Order: sequence, then C-alpha cells, then structure tokens
Amino acid sequence: MSIGGGAWTAALTPLKDDLTIDLDAAGEHCRWLLANGAAGVVVLGTTGEANSFSLEERKALIAHLARSGLPGERVIVGTGCCSAPETIALTRAALDAGYANVLMLPPFYYKGVSDDGLFAAYARAIEGVGSSALRVLIYDIPPQTGFALSVDLLRRLRDAFPETVVGVKNSSGDWSAMEAALKALPGFQVFAGSEQFLLPTLRGGGPGCISALANITSKQLGVLGAGWRDDGADALQEAATARRAALSKFPTIAALKEVMAARTGRAQWRNIRPPLMPLSGDQRAALHATASELELSL
Amino acid sequence: MSIGGGAWTAALTPLKDDLTIDLDAAGEHCRWLLANGAAGVVVLGTTGEANSFSLEERKALIAHLARSGLPGERVIVGTGCCSAPETIALTRAALDAGYANVLMLPPFYYKGVSDDGLFAAYARAIEGVGSSALRVLIYDIPPQTGFALSVDLLRRLRDAFPETVVGVKNSSGDWSAMEAALKALPGFQVFAGSEQFLLPTLRGGGPGCISALANITSKQLGVLGAGWRDDGADALQEAATARRAALSKFPTIAALKEVMAARTGRAQWRNIRPPLMPLSGDQRAALHATASELELSL
Repeated sequence: MSIGGGAWTAALTPLKDDLTIDLDAAGEHCRWLLANGAAGVVVLGTTGEANSFSLEERKALIAHLARSGLPGERVIVGTGCCSAPETIALTRAALDAGYANVLMLPPFYYKGVSDDGLFAAYARAIEGVGSSALRVLIYDIPPQTGFALSVDLLRRLRDAFPETVVGVKNSSGDWSAMEAALKALPGFQVFAGSEQFLLPTLRGGGPGCISALANITSKQLGVLGAGWRDDGADALQEAATARRAALSKFPTIAALKEVMAARTGRAQWRNIRPPLMPLSGDQRAALHATASELELSL
Repeated sequence: MSIGGGAWTAALTPLKDDLTIDLDAAGEHCRWLLANGAAGVVVLGTTGEANSFSLEERKALIAHLARSGLPGERVIVGTGCCSAPETIALTRAALDAGYANVLMLPPFYYKGVSDDGLFAAYARAIEGVGSSALRVLIYDIPPQTGFALSVDLLRRLRDAFPETVVGVKNSSGDWSAMEAALKALPGFQVFAGSEQFLLPTLRGGGPGCISALANITSKQLGVLGAGWRDDGADALQEAATARRAALSKFPTIAALKEVMAARTGRAQWRNIRPPLMPLSGDQRAALHATASELELSL
C-alpha cells in the first residue's frame, strides 16, 4: 500500500509562550490545512521543529492528533532520531495512534558514514518496530544531516523491505537527485522536499511534494496538485516557484510562523524553540512587504 | 571552580552483542584509563557514541559509573542533545550522580543558526538545570554539527554564566581557532579536541586536551600532560602527532574498538552501533600492521 500523492504540508508546530507545544493549536492547524488544499500533513518534520522536542513531547503531540480525529491516511509522522531505540519508540507511538506512515531521518550525528552503516541503521529500526502495517518514507535532507542518501541505498532498503520502505522525501534542493531516484526506482514514491519541484515530480511519475511553504499556500498548491495535467499547470508552478524564491531570503520556519501570527492575530504563533529565533523587527517588516507583493493574505 | 587539566580521554562505550551498553565493561574501561595516565575521562561524548543511545540508556550509564565509584572530579559527562528538555534531563542526571562537569553540544540539527539563537539555547539549558554546582564545557565540534561556535558566543556565555560556563572543547581540528579562543578569553578553559594540539594548548595557557586516541595511548599522553615543561616534551608531542596521522586513515571509533578487542582478547569490543560499523577484514589487517609499526601494544 502506498501513501497518498499530491501536495502535502510539512506542518508547523505552534508553541505556547513557555515554548511547550500548544496541542490544541497544533490539531487546529492540521485540520485547517486538510480542509484547505493540503493532500495531507507531515507532522514532526524539520518544519515542525521535531528535533527541538523531547521524545515525550513528540509522543504527546502524536497522541493528541489521534484523539482529535486527524485521519491516518492523511498524516505522516516524522520519527527518525539519532538513536535507534528512540526511533523505534517514536515509530511505535505513531503506529499505536493509528498513524502507519512515517518519515524517517537517518541517524544524523555522524558524518562520512557508509551505505552499509546507514542500511544497518534503517534495518535495525524497521525490524525493531516489527509491524507489517508500517510504511516508511526515507528522509533524505542533506542540508540538515550533512550527507546525501544514495539511490543504491534506497534500492537496497526497498528490496529488503518491499512492503515497508515505500518511498523517499528528497529535500536536497537538487532536481537532478530527485530525477535520478524517479528514473532508477519506478514505483518508489519519490516526494520532492519542496513545492518548487511539484510539477516536474508529478510529470516524472512521482507522487508529489512535501512543502514547508504549504503552511501558508496550501490552497494554491492544492489546485496545482489536483490539476497538474491541466493547461494552467505551468503557470501555477511558476507562481509557486516565484513565491518560494521571494521568501527564501527569510529564515523559513520563523517566516512561516510570522505569517501565521499575522493571519490569525495570535502572537503566540511567533514562538519558536532556540536555536531558531523569531524574525527581528526589520525582518518582519520586510516579510510583510514581500507578502504584500506576492498577494499572500496576511 | 575549574575542571582539572591534562590529557583527558574521550572514553569509548563498550557494547554487548545485542548492542546495548555493557555497563560493567564501561566502568572497568574508565577505571583502567584513570589508573593508566588519563587525567580524567569524558563519557558519552562523540567517541562514546552518545548520540546513538537513548536518554534512558545514557542515564543508566551515568548512574552505573557513579555506583562503581568513578570520582566526580575526574569525570566529564556529555549531556548536549538536540532538544532542550533532554539536555536538561541528562545534565540533571549527571549532577544527581555526583558529576558536576558536563560537555554540552549545541542543538545540532538546524544549520545556519545565529549566535543569538545558540546563546538562547545554551541559556535555556543552563537555567533549566538551575544548579550552582554545574560546570559546563561548551562542545564546539564542526565536523559533526556542521557549524563552528564563535569566540564572541563563548564570551557572551562566559559573561552571562561566569561560574558555570568554564570552558570549551574545540574539536575543529584547526589550531588557529583554538589559539584565537585561548588569546581572546584568558582563564577560560580551552581544551583541544585532540592530542595533536596538546603541547601547543598547554603552552598557550590552556588546560590540556580531550582525546579519542587516548583510549589506547593514555599512558604516553599522561607522560606528556604531566611533563610538558620538560626537555623531552616536543619529542613526545611529535610521537603523538605521528600516531594520530598514521591512524587517521581508519574510521576512528571502529579502529579504537578493534585495538581494544585485540588488547583485551574480548571480541565484544568490536561491537558498535550503526550507522558506525566495525572495521572490515582488510581494514583490520591494515590496522594491525599500522599498530605494529607504531609499536602500539595489541
């Protein structure tokens, strides 16, 4: 069984003023996204500041989203930690909550590691979870981990766990890497890690994208994800790419939280865990000017 | 109060065949190091594979070392995690066990973060622990984290927490960075992250080094650490630097574990957590040849 295609949102995690997770606001934001164009939500990914939260905080968020009724087929949970026991515990917590789709970072502390070592780490995690329900997207995000995952590693993992390792999220920002994976591994779900590559990915046989900016542009991306075979698709992609380029001068997560604060009138949306920081006053003014030029509602 | 100077060992963590920590062997290894030239042991650092263990596994190791009588003034515990709650919990566990000296990684998932963000992260952790007994070495290890810590950040942390932030371990491998910190921050304990810079660090007013290779060369480094003002110091440093250069062609942690296996006759010493892997047969043969040339006892 595969994971649904389209334009997914890598959901932000709203925080209270004491920087703990605002569970109610998190559930509300995810529901709003699902009702406003998002094919689904990835929670506890990079945009969701997952690694800034303890294992217990992440488990509590997963359990809350399940209780609030967020449907399993429209959720992917980030569960990859540096340590295998924690990756296993978090993945089990997702499964127990009814979320069988997970996005799994490789253990990311050590660099220069071998494909054998990365294969062993993923195998240990998947076998440790030991569930036939599990569906794993491998998370390839060189800007954060410091290393790229090879197509050969992806193939080995798919071949070893054909029912479980169903795809990859490629956040390299490098289309040639996504294209190589799409061509080498037909049927493997190669999600682009940004909406910048949504149309090329869909045309290349991929399922879609998982996008941070979709927190504030889910409607527009939903139209493109659903209508990518239509005449206006190229223009929609160009607009999405232009938005991304214009917003790329701001720190992504803080900028998205600033837009959410402006849109909802809730100042708490600006809360973010160090080492990330809210936008400065100057950045905030510049962002509002940019958003206005882009005709993004605030 | 400062941390003791000299040549410290970044202790390996011995594992059982199921890749759980061999607590007894860990205590034994630390005691052996302290009795054989090590000024002290840093446990749960990079060499100790800290980030491959869960919070609970790390706490269990800390508690075991305390129960086994490893003295507080000769131990530094690595406690820096990606998330503030886990850094705080682990640091408290170290303090509760009688280990007031900790080596604290910055939150290392996000890159391109600001000094303000890193300052806020460290401040949050230190204030969260809230103990006047705590002594923090900041852990600056760009090869693993992907970013270097500025002298200005170190100064801000020292000035904000003068009784607590006592120094830094600089594992950049770049002498100019260590020299800059030594010159800019007199009295701040700038430990070199490798024995390659032990003598220059001591001559520059620093306290010493924290070395991975000291797991297998603690005696030789102990002589240099104690006798660095003596005539033979340069020759001892040259020998240490030559050993390091010769061993640098092997993956460090796996190579050190291989030497320990050969020395002790305990094959379990080769166990290592993925993504790290034991040496291959070819690497093992090459390492034994190198060790023989270096006259390292096996």
